[in-house]
Amino acid sequence: ADLAAGRAKAVQCQACHGLDGIAKIPEAPNLAGQNEDYLVKALNDFRSGARTNEMMSMVAKPLSDADIANLAAFYHSLGRQ
Amino acid sequence: ADLAAGRAKAVQCQACHGLDGIAKIPEAPNLAGQNEDYLVKALNDFRSGARTNEMMSMVAKPLSDADIANLAAFYHSLGRQ
Repeated sequence: ADLAAGRAKAVQCQACHGLDGIAKIPEAPNLAGQNEDYLVKALNDFRSGARTNEMMSMVAKPLSDADIANLAAFYHSLGRQ
Repeated sequence: ADLAAGRAKAVQCQACHGLDGIAKIPEAPNLAGQNEDYLVKALNDFRSGARTNEMMSMVAKPLSDADIANLAAFYHSLGRQ
C-alpha cells in the first residue's frame, strides 16, 4: 500500500475522521491506529452495500481497491494517540 | 452509564477486542477510547441486524439497552493507548 497516496486520498475523510484519525464528530469513529484488515473490510463493505451509512455509503462507492488499501494503511500508520 | 457493569459485561468481548480495548485479532477493531456514540450505534446496529458480522450479530442479540450503554461507556473510558 502507498501511504502518501492514502494520505492524499484521506483529505476527503478529514471533516469527519480528522486527518490525524481523531474524529471531529461524535457519530464518527476514531481511525488512528485502527487495525488495517478491519479498515479494509469496513470500506469494502460500505462500497458493496453490505454495510450502510448515509455518508460512508456515498463516499466509499467510487473508491478503487488501491484507494481502500492505501486509506487503510494510512489511518493504521497514524498509531493510537 | 455504569462503567463497572460495562467492564463486567466486557469479559465476553475480550477474546477479540481485549479487556484493554486493543484487539487481539486483526479482523477486530480496537475499541479503547472509541467515541461512545459510535459504539452505541454499532452495537444497536448489530443487535437489530442493520449491520452484520458472524461474531457480532450473535453476541449483540441478547444485549439490553443498558448493556449497550455500559459497554460503550466502558470502552470509551479506556482512552486511546
